[in-house]
Amino acid sequence: MTAEVVPVTGPVLALDIGGTKLAAGIIDTGGRVVASARIATPEGLDGEGLWSTVASLSRQLVQGPGNGAISGVGIGCGGPMQWPDGRVSPLNIPSWTEFPLRDRVRELFPDVPVRLHNDAVAFVAGEHWRGAGRGRDHVLGMVVSTGVGGGLVLGGRLVDGASGNAGHIGHVVVDADGPDCICGGRGCLEAIARGPAVASWAVSQGWRPGSATTATARDLTDDAARGHPVAQAALARAGHALGVAIAGATHLLDLEVVTVGGGLSQAGPLLFDPLEEAFRRHARMQFARDVRVVPAALGQEAGLVGAAALVLAGDDRYWSAD
Amino acid sequence: MTAEVVPVTGPVLALDIGGTKLAAGIIDTGGRVVASARIATPEGLDGEGLWSTVASLSRQLVQGPGNGAISGVGIGCGGPMQWPDGRVSPLNIPSWTEFPLRDRVRELFPDVPVRLHNDAVAFVAGEHWRGAGRGRDHVLGMVVSTGVGGGLVLGGRLVDGASGNAGHIGHVVVDADGPDCICGGRGCLEAIARGPAVASWAVSQGWRPGSATTATARDLTDDAARGHPVAQAALARAGHALGVAIAGATHLLDLEVVTVGGGLSQAGPLLFDPLEEAFRRHARMQFARDVRVVPAALGQEAGLVGAAALVLAGDDRYWSAD
Repeated sequence: MTAEVVPVTGPVLALDIGGTKLAAGIIDTGGRVVASARIATPEGLDGEGLWSTVASLSRQLVQGPGNGAISGVGIGCGGPMQWPDGRVSPLNIPSWTEFPLRDRVRELFPDVPVRLHNDAVAFVAGEHWRGAGRGRDHVLGMVVSTGVGGGLVLGGRLVDGASGNAGHIGHVVVDADGPDCICGGRGCLEAIARGPAVASWAVSQGWRPGSATTATARDLTDDAARGHPVAQAALARAGHALGVAIAGATHLLDLEVVTVGGGLSQAGPLLFDPLEEAFRRHARMQFARDVRVVPAALGQEAGLVGAAALVLAGDDRYWSAD
Repeated sequence: MTAEVVPVTGPVLALDIGGTKLAAGIIDTGGRVVASARIATPEGLDGEGLWSTVASLSRQLVQGPGNGAISGVGIGCGGPMQWPDGRVSPLNIPSWTEFPLRDRVRELFPDVPVRLHNDAVAFVAGEHWRGAGRGRDHVLGMVVSTGVGGGLVLGGRLVDGASGNAGHIGHVVVDADGPDCICGGRGCLEAIARGPAVASWAVSQGWRPGSATTATARDLTDDAARGHPVAQAALARAGHALGVAIAGATHLLDLEVVTVGGGLSQAGPLLFDPLEEAFRRHARMQFARDVRVVPAALGQEAGLVGAAALVLAGDDRYWSAD
């Protein structure tokens, strides 16, 4: 299936929709974020209520001062989803089950192309287009946050998979006897390395957040930076699981660069050092030795830039559907 | 990189070179095996000695009665290798380190295209072209034998990876604290599920082969079929590890079919039933539920047919290099 190449000549609206935050941005044709807005994903809303929030954020940004007409909309949303239809059932947004997100956005912006992909798939498109994977052809992108998502560029092209769900490295098994996972499986990377799992493991080992009533990964990262041994051990455990999964993916796919973003990646060396150690311990084939595992170059903006890349990249590298 | 499309109009020579056996065949343009020969991989030879054996087998087959001129040579060889140069360093053929196999075969057949890939990569090309993956676009092929190899077809095209080494599912980690692996890593699928590892685990649990002095996976499979509980447990342990690794690959790549060949796959349900159980336990995402894990449709011939496909398939589906 070859995409119709849509001539996009102006800025686009990008949406990045996850279990932790909703972000919207206006991205110009060079991949720069011209304007953006970001809010915490509201909790307790039903599906339509959440959609209203997304629609308001979109309208507000497009109608904001200095933002003219848009040439398209690119959306990254938590998976899984039916793709390219864009009916989404994000594991971390329980109020959306088969929610027709792409159609709803089309109703809002009926005159321009609207494309949607898994948020972590959009992330790797962004990192490949304008970030840490630029100039490379074999890139794994990972988002370590409320969940652990991923996306793949192989041979210079975004990998969709049979149903548009390729990239779910969060549900690679790293410990077959490990904790139950939200997906119904067991011992998945996500069950160990997602922010809430890291925090709750630390609590089970005696760590208590200083002031908050609920323990968050952000509190944990702060405490780890201050030297709390249990908080550090929790990040090391997550880093180890990430390194094991990345080693396996590297052997399976013969990658060049792995780029890691998302909130938990802000922990820096407290996460990346044990990750690197486990990765090097397990990625021993000769062809895996030059692989670099690096923080996302686009930081918090990778998701928005990647969503925009679905529409803006001037060929079908990131979009193989209708 | 787009391949020059070589017009292949007649039968080709296919070579399948592994740690257990050497096979050669004449394959017609429809993918049928017209003639073939198979010998155990000689042990104790140095690199040049082993090459002489391969060259003799090749000449014998091409010059055999009824075999005319060949239009090309396709080679599958144990990995890893430098690709597409075809300098091979098979883990299970220690006498070849950076052995220039593609060049040597070119010297033997200087007038026709010679293409070489990892044997398990060739296997999946064969299964996609004429076997269990026919008509599907997202296929993982696995060869469970002396080693555990693999190859990938995604989006209808063979996946090469950055250096031609994509597909090494045998070195995906299934138990980070598991046994040491020949690759230098730990807890790789191959360290648990390769034939010799299955047999030696059974020996460690008290199983003894009936007559032979060394315990082989074939003896073990025979005893398991006769109801020996330790032999059955050994196959179940291997099947579990295979199922866990396949579940992870399915989530990562959003596959349609996984086809499993190689000597150990001859164990049938004693291997495939525990494999399927572990796979279903861990592959829980909705998009993974329709994936089928099946024995190789081409059986012992998959490697030869796949090696031939590198040259015979009339486009660049299976060959993206020069």
